Amino acid sequence: MARYVVDVMPKPEILDPQGKAVLGALPRLGFAGVVEVRQGKRFEVEIEGDATPESLAEVEQMAQTLLSNPVIEDFEVRTA
Amino acid sequence: MARYVVDVMPKPEILDPQGKAVLGALPRLGFAGVVEVRQGKRFEVEIEGDATPESLAEVEQMAQTLLSNPVIEDFEVRTA
Repeated sequence: MARYVVDVMPKPEILDPQGKAVLGALPRLGFAGVVEVRQGKRFEVEIEGDATPESLAEVEQMAQTLLSNPVIEDFEVRTA
Repeated sequence: MARYVVDVMPKPEILDPQGKAVLGALPRLGFAGVVEVRQGKRFEVEIEGDATPESLAEVEQMAQTLLSNPVIEDFEVRTA
């Protein structure tokens, strides 16, 4: 079984309201000194067979078409 | 500036409806052979000062109290 991790994060120039909400909540919970929080998604994908360049390319295609919105998000695929 | 990544994933025994929805959509998009998809969250946290055991402990405390729900989610903190 091949296991991949896909990290999807908002592009740096895109406003990230979820991250901003966390950043705003931290001081109220007593956490000081936090400068920036960005929130994204993490997927764990299991594919039949061994990890090959082909299965990696397939997961990259999934990330591009279903797991991320390439207009506002960047993604990264790696073997788990 | 110290940068940390917090990965938050649903516990293995917890049903993950978002992951199941992705798993169900993949064959319709022409992706075969995917056995399992789990969806979680990924946070990037920037803190003033250098990365120290103290700042790592602070981020772990944040992950425990705000970024994850420890009843249904596991988290992992690491230096970015």
